[in-house]
Amino acid sequence: MKLATLRTGGATRAVRLDGEVLVDLGAPDLGALLAQEGWAERAATATGATYPVEGADFAPVVPAPSKVVCVGLNYRNHIQEMGRDLPEHPTLFAKFADALIGARDEIVRPAETDRFDWEVELAVVVGASVRRARGEEAERAVAGFTVLNDITCRDWQFRSREWLQGKTWDSTTPVGPYLVTPDELPGGVRPSLDVRLLVDGEVMQSDSTGDLLFDPVDLVEYVSTIVRLNPGDIIATGTPGGVGHARRPERYLLGGETVVTEIEGIGRLENRVVREKTS
Amino acid sequence: MKLATLRTGGATRAVRLDGEVLVDLGAPDLGALLAQEGWAERAATATGATYPVEGADFAPVVPAPSKVVCVGLNYRNHIQEMGRDLPEHPTLFAKFADALIGARDEIVRPAETDRFDWEVELAVVVGASVRRARGEEAERAVAGFTVLNDITCRDWQFRSREWLQGKTWDSTTPVGPYLVTPDELPGGVRPSLDVRLLVDGEVMQSDSTGDLLFDPVDLVEYVSTIVRLNPGDIIATGTPGGVGHARRPERYLLGGETVVTEIEGIGRLENRVVREKTS
Repeated sequence: MKLATLRTGGATRAVRLDGEVLVDLGAPDLGALLAQEGWAERAATATGATYPVEGADFAPVVPAPSKVVCVGLNYRNHIQEMGRDLPEHPTLFAKFADALIGARDEIVRPAETDRFDWEVELAVVVGASVRRARGEEAERAVAGFTVLNDITCRDWQFRSREWLQGKTWDSTTPVGPYLVTPDELPGGVRPSLDVRLLVDGEVMQSDSTGDLLFDPVDLVEYVSTIVRLNPGDIIATGTPGGVGHARRPERYLLGGETVVTEIEGIGRLENRVVREKTS
Repeated sequence: MKLATLRTGGATRAVRLDGEVLVDLGAPDLGALLAQEGWAERAATATGATYPVEGADFAPVVPAPSKVVCVGLNYRNHIQEMGRDLPEHPTLFAKFADALIGARDEIVRPAETDRFDWEVELAVVVGASVRRARGEEAERAVAGFTVLNDITCRDWQFRSREWLQGKTWDSTTPVGPYLVTPDELPGGVRPSLDVRLLVDGEVMQSDSTGDLLFDPVDLVEYVSTIVRLNPGDIIATGTPGGVGHARRPERYLLGGETVVTEIEGIGRLENRVVREKTS
């Protein structure tokens, strides 16, 4: 199944993709759907109103997750090309839900940054309430996957000891358009899929999620050791090489570009970058 | 005013302290109250059911804030005694709301840590929706202050490059019992108050919030530059010297201790530390 949260005139609806239409699932968004017992059965069988896919206005796939956990260095190639040892533990940081935008929304470049960068990421969407999940329980807690562009203000990321302030700018992180359930993917809850990011058609990042050091199930186990995971929570699994900050010369988003962030079999974000109007 | 969120048989209620009783404010918790236009007037004048203060069971002062932003090094004395220069910008990290517990709740020491530490902090509770607030707008966005103990698993804090995983363990961070409005405090939105933390009666931390490098209004301005602040959001303003990790020899919470975290004129957390039962 491919599920999404659709904007419909001031409100949102949870929907399922059926060919050329989106079928209403009787819930205001995917966060609310995933919080229901038996959500997968309900999502598979619901027969509500339909909306055309053409021109659909996607909200963040889960608009208000209780947590967005992001993983730092997690692609083996990228860690090794940077001359670092493979870490023993994942590096985790947070984004607040107010950073999230939809799959086709404009990314507004804040006036306060000069180093506005991209990061394609495979994101796990959690479909159960779990703490200290292990093995099959952790696998079952993966509702599915989506695409996230972990847009980052590098100047703010490195202003202080902690990355958060570069990572959680308001309305800068597109996520969606679809949550794709693991049964649709080769590798299931540990999918091996091509990930790419293009700026104005130029490929900036290209790798495979098979290169992840800590795979989606590892991450559900690790994060849920620390804190409960709730339905709708998002874990962004890290980005491969090719970010603007690591290029020589460095490359940043100035405004006016179109950024395409895509993962094979999961989906594609397409976002125009616009400069913030200053008052 | 002193406001709180009270647990009442399976639910919670927003309340105001009136002498020996807590007056029901007609909202399920302080987060819901603060989201209402004119919340201060409503809180001041409400005349609902009453509950005795004696034996009150306090929930986290805001049970589910959309964000808990924490500040790293922020007491001048502590920064200078550590031989560091005063930073130009605040260091920010996050906690997820699932870390929060009430003012008298047990702090459960996870089986996975051997370095379980304390941090008394003055916490700002936000009372308005603001982005890039400056000056009086930032001052007005401060609904009031509360007490937070930023309990930390030091071993997990320093496992990786980022502090988050040591800071957001489930149900370990007491916050409350009261939100105290600035009009009740000397210094108003920039209060100068004694902060202390005691373990089994022994004073471990003692300082004044007058020593804060970035004061509450500075922090509202800074954080809201990055991301909108919503009613009920919490900013923990950092801790002074005296944490267990910085002592020689190091001191940690093992289980069985009573930790008192108090700020003059604002309130007192009293929490017993218990060892987690392992299955």
